[in-house]
Amino acid sequence: MRWLRSVFVAAVFGLLCSGGLVLAAEPEVAAAPYVLTQASSPADFALVGDKQQAQILLDRHDHKGLQRAVATLQQDIDKVTDRQLPVFHKVTADAGSGLALIIGSLDQSALLKDLVQRGKLDVSAIQGRWEAFQINLVQAPLPGIRQALVIAGSDKRGAIFGVYDLAEQIGVSPWVWWADVPVKTSKVLYIKAGTLKVDAPKVKYRGIFLNDEYPALTSWVLQKYGGYNHKFYQQVFELLLRLKANFLWPAMWNNAFADDDAKNALLADEMGIVMSTSHHEPMMRADKEWNRYGKGPWEYSKNRDAIYQFWQQGAKRHKNLESIFTLGMRGQEDEPMSEGENIGLLERIVADQRQILAETFKGRGISTVPQVWALYKEVQGFYERGMRVPDDVTLLWSDDNFGHLRRLPTFDERSRSGGAGVYYHFDYVGGPRSYTWINSTPIAKIWQQMDLASRYQANRIWIVNVGDLKPMEYPIDFFLRMAWNPTQFNAGNLELYARDFAAQQFGAEHAEEIAYLLEGYSRHNGRRRPEAMTAQSYPLLANNEAARVSRELADLAARSTALLAKLPQNQQDAFIQLVDHPVQATQALFELYHATARNQVWAEQGRRETNTAAAEVKRWFARDAALTARYHQLGAPAGQPGRWDQLMAQPHIGLAYWRNPEANTMPVVLTNQPITPADMGVVAEGSGTSWPQSDDLGQSLTLPRFDRLGTQQRVIEIFNRGSQPFSFAAKVVGAGKAATDWLQISAQQGEVAESYPLRVSIDWRKTQPGLNQAEVWVKGTGYGWAKVKVTALDSPAAQAPVLKAALASAATAPFADADGYIAINASSALVTGNTAERYWQQVAGLGRFLMAEQAGSMVAVTLPDHLADLSPAVIKQAPQLQFPLYFQQAGEFTLQLQLSPALQITPGRGVRLALALNDAAPQLLDLMADYDDKLWQQSVLDNIRILRMPLQVKTAGLHQLRVYLVDPAVVLQKILIDTGGLAPGYLGPVQSRRLQLQQGQ
Amino acid sequence: MRWLRSVFVAAVFGLLCSGGLVLAAEPEVAAAPYVLTQASSPADFALVGDKQQAQILLDRHDHKGLQRAVATLQQDIDKVTDRQLPVFHKVTADAGSGLALIIGSLDQSALLKDLVQRGKLDVSAIQGRWEAFQINLVQAPLPGIRQALVIAGSDKRGAIFGVYDLAEQIGVSPWVWWADVPVKTSKVLYIKAGTLKVDAPKVKYRGIFLNDEYPALTSWVLQKYGGYNHKFYQQVFELLLRLKANFLWPAMWNNAFADDDAKNALLADEMGIVMSTSHHEPMMRADKEWNRYGKGPWEYSKNRDAIYQFWQQGAKRHKNLESIFTLGMRGQEDEPMSEGENIGLLERIVADQRQILAETFKGRGISTVPQVWALYKEVQGFYERGMRVPDDVTLLWSDDNFGHLRRLPTFDERSRSGGAGVYYHFDYVGGPRSYTWINSTPIAKIWQQMDLASRYQANRIWIVNVGDLKPMEYPIDFFLRMAWNPTQFNAGNLELYARDFAAQQFGAEHAEEIAYLLEGYSRHNGRRRPEAMTAQSYPLLANNEAARVSRELADLAARSTALLAKLPQNQQDAFIQLVDHPVQATQALFELYHATARNQVWAEQGRRETNTAAAEVKRWFARDAALTARYHQLGAPAGQPGRWDQLMAQPHIGLAYWRNPEANTMPVVLTNQPITPADMGVVAEGSGTSWPQSDDLGQSLTLPRFDRLGTQQRVIEIFNRGSQPFSFAAKVVGAGKAATDWLQISAQQGEVAESYPLRVSIDWRKTQPGLNQAEVWVKGTGYGWAKVKVTALDSPAAQAPVLKAALASAATAPFADADGYIAINASSALVTGNTAERYWQQVAGLGRFLMAEQAGSMVAVTLPDHLADLSPAVIKQAPQLQFPLYFQQAGEFTLQLQLSPALQITPGRGVRLALALNDAAPQLLDLMADYDDKLWQQSVLDNIRILRMPLQVKTAGLHQLRVYLVDPAVVLQKILIDTGGLAPGYLGPVQSRRLQLQQGQ
Repeated sequence: MRWLRSVFVAAVFGLLCSGGLVLAAEPEVAAAPYVLTQASSPADFALVGDKQQAQILLDRHDHKGLQRAVATLQQDIDKVTDRQLPVFHKVTADAGSGLALIIGSLDQSALLKDLVQRGKLDVSAIQGRWEAFQINLVQAPLPGIRQALVIAGSDKRGAIFGVYDLAEQIGVSPWVWWADVPVKTSKVLYIKAGTLKVDAPKVKYRGIFLNDEYPALTSWVLQKYGGYNHKFYQQVFELLLRLKANFLWPAMWNNAFADDDAKNALLADEMGIVMSTSHHEPMMRADKEWNRYGKGPWEYSKNRDAIYQFWQQGAKRHKNLESIFTLGMRGQEDEPMSEGENIGLLERIVADQRQILAETFKGRGISTVPQVWALYKEVQGFYERGMRVPDDVTLLWSDDNFGHLRRLPTFDERSRSGGAGVYYHFDYVGGPRSYTWINSTPIAKIWQQMDLASRYQANRIWIVNVGDLKPMEYPIDFFLRMAWNPTQFNAGNLELYARDFAAQQFGAEHAEEIAYLLEGYSRHNGRRRPEAMTAQSYPLLANNEAARVSRELADLAARSTALLAKLPQNQQDAFIQLVDHPVQATQALFELYHATARNQVWAEQGRRETNTAAAEVKRWFARDAALTARYHQLGAPAGQPGRWDQLMAQPHIGLAYWRNPEANTMPVVLTNQPITPADMGVVAEGSGTSWPQSDDLGQSLTLPRFDRLGTQQRVIEIFNRGSQPFSFAAKVVGAGKAATDWLQISAQQGEVAESYPLRVSIDWRKTQPGLNQAEVWVKGTGYGWAKVKVTALDSPAAQAPVLKAALASAATAPFADADGYIAINASSALVTGNTAERYWQQVAGLGRFLMAEQAGSMVAVTLPDHLADLSPAVIKQAPQLQFPLYFQQAGEFTLQLQLSPALQITPGRGVRLALALNDAAPQLLDLMADYDDKLWQQSVLDNIRILRMPLQVKTAGLHQLRVYLVDPAVVLQKILIDTGGLAPGYLGPVQSRRLQLQQGQ
Repeated sequence: MRWLRSVFVAAVFGLLCSGGLVLAAEPEVAAAPYVLTQASSPADFALVGDKQQAQILLDRHDHKGLQRAVATLQQDIDKVTDRQLPVFHKVTADAGSGLALIIGSLDQSALLKDLVQRGKLDVSAIQGRWEAFQINLVQAPLPGIRQALVIAGSDKRGAIFGVYDLAEQIGVSPWVWWADVPVKTSKVLYIKAGTLKVDAPKVKYRGIFLNDEYPALTSWVLQKYGGYNHKFYQQVFELLLRLKANFLWPAMWNNAFADDDAKNALLADEMGIVMSTSHHEPMMRADKEWNRYGKGPWEYSKNRDAIYQFWQQGAKRHKNLESIFTLGMRGQEDEPMSEGENIGLLERIVADQRQILAETFKGRGISTVPQVWALYKEVQGFYERGMRVPDDVTLLWSDDNFGHLRRLPTFDERSRSGGAGVYYHFDYVGGPRSYTWINSTPIAKIWQQMDLASRYQANRIWIVNVGDLKPMEYPIDFFLRMAWNPTQFNAGNLELYARDFAAQQFGAEHAEEIAYLLEGYSRHNGRRRPEAMTAQSYPLLANNEAARVSRELADLAARSTALLAKLPQNQQDAFIQLVDHPVQATQALFELYHATARNQVWAEQGRRETNTAAAEVKRWFARDAALTARYHQLGAPAGQPGRWDQLMAQPHIGLAYWRNPEANTMPVVLTNQPITPADMGVVAEGSGTSWPQSDDLGQSLTLPRFDRLGTQQRVIEIFNRGSQPFSFAAKVVGAGKAATDWLQISAQQGEVAESYPLRVSIDWRKTQPGLNQAEVWVKGTGYGWAKVKVTALDSPAAQAPVLKAALASAATAPFADADGYIAINASSALVTGNTAERYWQQVAGLGRFLMAEQAGSMVAVTLPDHLADLSPAVIKQAPQLQFPLYFQQAGEFTLQLQLSPALQITPGRGVRLALALNDAAPQLLDLMADYDDKLWQQSVLDNIRILRMPLQVKTAGLHQLRVYLVDPAVVLQKILIDTGGLAPGYLGPVQSRRLQLQQGQ
């Protein structure tokens, strides 16, 4: 498979590029693709050859789950080649081609044991390991078999993963069923001569959590399966296995996995899926089971006996099924316990649960029974206040429900026998806003967070809440692949993942384009989740933000539409599910609110276009519904429920708070009646305040200040509030006798139907040093003139000779203070002082940047237990980001650091960095300082944490801003310096231009 | 005429009631009606008898203006009786019936001189007086004449006013032409035997200012007359004379009276109208004449010669025409001079203007040339900073453009030979909001202000800006009648004026009802002018204000519609103009914004009724247009321009600031798409915050606190945000184990289609002393319960035994502190300490009260030059308003005095009153303290000036609030005391109930 190759290549590249540290990986045999669709040498193994094909050899007594997997592989090969390989349990007299695919687990396969004993197979690389597999070609392994491909697992799942490794390599995507990805057919399948692949997972339990599954998944399940029964779950288990995952928290919103269908748990065990119950459902019993069978209140202090028995039954039911027992207790329906934060009570609960397990698993050490304590929400507080569980219980740390890890193991905790894991979210129902619709978590963010988890050895369990599963194919794929081997992805190769994913689903031809679309829509939703969108989210006026985003999404939508039309018919359904639907739906949702914003601002201004915008709102709302309907229709004739009917039923428009509305709720639209005949309004670029209302408010229309280094043309918009065109006259007026010839307007008169852009520019040959002031007066209908203030700052520091001197002294061209601000993307930093153990790492695509910015963030990496010496002299030696700045004037400015939200992963320690202008003493900044729930809410809604501070710039000209590394988990996205003209925005302006002398200057 | 009688009766009554002072009036012969429509005695004079009729005798050489007036009277008599009385210039041989109506002026009529000389006529009562007339029956005055009715004027206008006095008495309204008021026909007209009426004006120049006359009046004038020519002005002059007025500032928006039509000024002079130019148009030259003929800038410092000549021409043109010369100078278009506040310059200008006059009127003392200096806007500042003009120039003080006098003559100023006048406004174009549409100045307010002017002897000129004239018939009528004799109206008879006006226009039968309608619409517009209305003006929720006003206007509109249908056909056009149009248009405008408010609040709540409200907005907007169209159509067949076409063309909807929009601009309407199926919202009475949004805002729904003395039932409204009905359940939930049986709800469940009122009440037998708290929980669609906090204060002070004791000790029943406030209308005060010279005067209908409140204000009256001794002991002796209060709890409360806006009419002195609780030392309060332009704007928009202060109440139970009189011009409307539950409102809640024991308490 192409993606494996490129990941491999990129991994090497990444190591070279990042200058960083890769945690020591267990030595595996590097895995180049080993399946060929045409023979390259006579030594290649013909799984399905031109003239011959292999038979499958599988021990009759091998694991049932493996036998199921082999049967699935058999079907996969059939789908790819239209040939069915026969399965035999021993070498028959007539061995046919003499070619065999031998599959087995070391613990159950006599066949394998035989090969090993006879020296035909060396399994030392996998023997005794967890879920390891080895795939290699063996010559004449058995009598009658001249060549065999052997898939050997160290255990049941090791063998199964080997099988699915082959399935993936021959062209069957893990998403073959769940996303209708067509197999890549090929008449023949050869295994490359010399193939040897050994692999094993680095995270022990890797899984997903089906959650918040109503209405989308549940409605679909009811329609297709009648309930959450084993037929449904078989598909889930198979998906997990194909993705080499092994763990599941089942759907629990209104369901009880083991109780809904008795075969559910049995099938999971048989197929090899380790089951558990979610963080607040102890002892393998679903929350909903208490509703069905529990007696009395769910309060341990009052109703111990009933609850104890309830749990005993859970342990008993799963005694012989591979499980992880969730310990502890929370309230029902994902609420804290009604008893409050009672550590004594919770310790008693855990002791009781352990007693139940000891009794149930009598004769087996309790430390061999996998147990987990989920330190979710308020439960982490119990832990931090001193509550402990026995060492063999896994501590499951959690994110903040919005993808930011709250805590990782300390040095001491890392030596616990139970180890640690992470509970992560791609979907969440709760405050400040639920996100349950389409994917809104960028791959780069997942990687940055889970890379931290890996570095801190939280590798016993990785589980991610995937909501309804279906719209999360892309991040699930990434998360589980990373769980298999966290170190295979790094800052250098991460960007290739999207292309590899695309290539696996749709082939190489359009992989780059599809990767762009995947990255584009998910990065946009990562800037602000769709459910948190309002008309005000991206400012309509400041920094041109809404228009910039709108253009990007329009581009994505158009490219996706074009590609959909180009793709073969059999790929289109998958493309819609994985790419086109999220792309188009993302755009529709954004434009819905964008039109609403125009509608609101224009209504306030009384524009005749108000009603046009109102119609746009309705159109985008209908567009969203049409996109949902198209999705629901996939694979079925018109009028009949499609293959994925209801899976996009999640309401996602009109959230007023964390709860979803009952249905998508169109924003209120505003309409007006343009008056007859005409009525002039005037507005200055960047502001919504319009004349004539401005007169009432006692406000002036004012254009942003011009300067020599900034925007050289701005617009005064003259618009119509009436239904008929009108003429206007415009003139420049100075105060008193001041000259105004430095101020130029594009027209002295004109005709306005809907609106007219009067362009304003400056002739710098005629300005006076310092601040130049004048007004543009516009007269149309109505009484008097609309007056727009124009100022132009002619700063000596922006003159050519001074600039030349500045450039000469700067190592790199500095970012120019222009239009009243400096904006710099973190990835533009010059990095110095990186060491192997502590370094700033550039991660492309991480952050709220637009695609066209080709920017990324700088991530602070240190050893987990590194404790910084905070003396200024030492900090000055730390890895450093340098940003050269060029100020037009001295002044007291405001500096804004835009950082990814981050939490205190190490208890008792901040999340810090240090800042200095030029050679000043570094100033220590802590993301945790003054951090509270309100700030957290703002951060996760905006997906940014902003630190603001004053910046004293004592002279115009060149300066160096230095950002020093102190703590890990700091992710710097952007720097904004307000020198007097920074408009409050969401993303802020795009990066300032670097100083460069124009020709002639 | 009925109104004269009732005014007379009421005047006597008023004197008795008010206990107040009436300025010494010159002794006139009291004027009972002298025209009879049937003979009551043989001695009655048959002007037009059953069998005989009088001839008119008029000296051929008498004033041309009088001859015109007599011709008009001749036509009036014809209209009334269908008989034309012949006019003779001397007694003819054949004197017919021997009955004569002899009319003349003492200065020009030989006939009268003859009568006087022959001892037939005693004119000593009018001889030598300004504009005096006398009407009396004379037996055998001349040979051949056995009986005559003599109308003798002391001068030209005296005679003319006598003529129009008769015209009015025979049944011709002054508004016969301008409002299509039909004459009251009668076959016969007798003059009562013994008739003697002598009358003369108390204000020398009484007039109106046609201003801001575009678009309404101008469009109509252009259509009907082709321009502001003498044919148009003839109608204006006749109206003025019929109303016994004599003075005009002509239309000047884009017009120049004397230049537009050379006959304009000549006709005015001939008919007896004294012309002038408005406050900023000096020397009888219109502003617009400078545009036509002026050379160079309108800047005296730069262009003296041209402007001097320009003014010379004005003086010359009007040399022989009765005029008042406006002195001084302002900028063009009603702006301040461009030279700024240059007193030296302005003094030079006045000196030059006086020089021009001295030259023009050479040989005549300049002090005999009427001159005026208008102390308007910034010009008053010149005066206050020391600039003076010669003593013979009249000082014209002004209101603040919103009907509040800014200044009145001091003691010294009152002895100036030029005297003082007042410039008042019924119409204004300027900030904070223009008001130019329909009448929005209540009669009571005009009276209160002009009564002040009269008391301060500002009686040389009264001129009022009437905008387009036409929609202001009612206040013009009052203003000019009051100008004739200010003391004829007083607090006691003022309310009868509307009935008299109604009777004159429509007869006695419906006069009371029509008076109610006139008072109703004008009082509403006086609460807040239509142009200043927004959807937020009257709170939709607090104090039920919008609903209260809506009910009042609906009542007015329904009654007006019913009456219109009842009136005879020939009265309907007049009724529409004077009554029905303003009533209906007032309602439509209010309801337009009322619907807009519902639309906005409901949209915010997501109610399905949002769209109903949106449709209402459109309906009321269309209703307004239809009412305008009806007005414009009056008197014409459908499709043709009516008699008053365009006179209601003033845009009046959608003012964002002082300028009018180009056309009526419908408020922006909001529409939503109710979701499918249903979606519950919940809101607590008095608040717009609704569940579920409240959860997001972190706010609770809370009902206003209950107490024993207050509102006993409140509503939780459960509403639908979706398109299909839903069911709800409701329950009462207490904290912990607290009992909740004291809290009652009207239903435990129900069905909601659009909305459902869940009623909440208290069982006071089950409450605990102090604050009782619980919640009402409501569950419908959606997740969780909506929770509404309910509190009930069971105060010991509200218990029956305590109340009984309180009542026993109170002279009058105190106003109860209930629902967290006390509200009292000023007119509910107990007044003590009034003297003949200083007193609180109750003025019914003055203030922002609803009609149903039957309330009014208390006006502080003192002698103009009274200076209060401000020592507490003396203040305690001042006239005092007492308000008995009963508090349920002690506390630090907030007291709010709602006062009419008032300004510093006496320089160097505040506008003060004093306040005390019980026997505390009076606290002095000054309406001028901290007064600034912003506060002024707020005051004139809200038509209220609010003083707020803390009120320390140390014990529950009975207290006395005392308001002492200090300065004149203080008008107290209402008192509000916030004891914890006063909702911020516009008018505030209606008056609190007085304490009274319920049966069984």
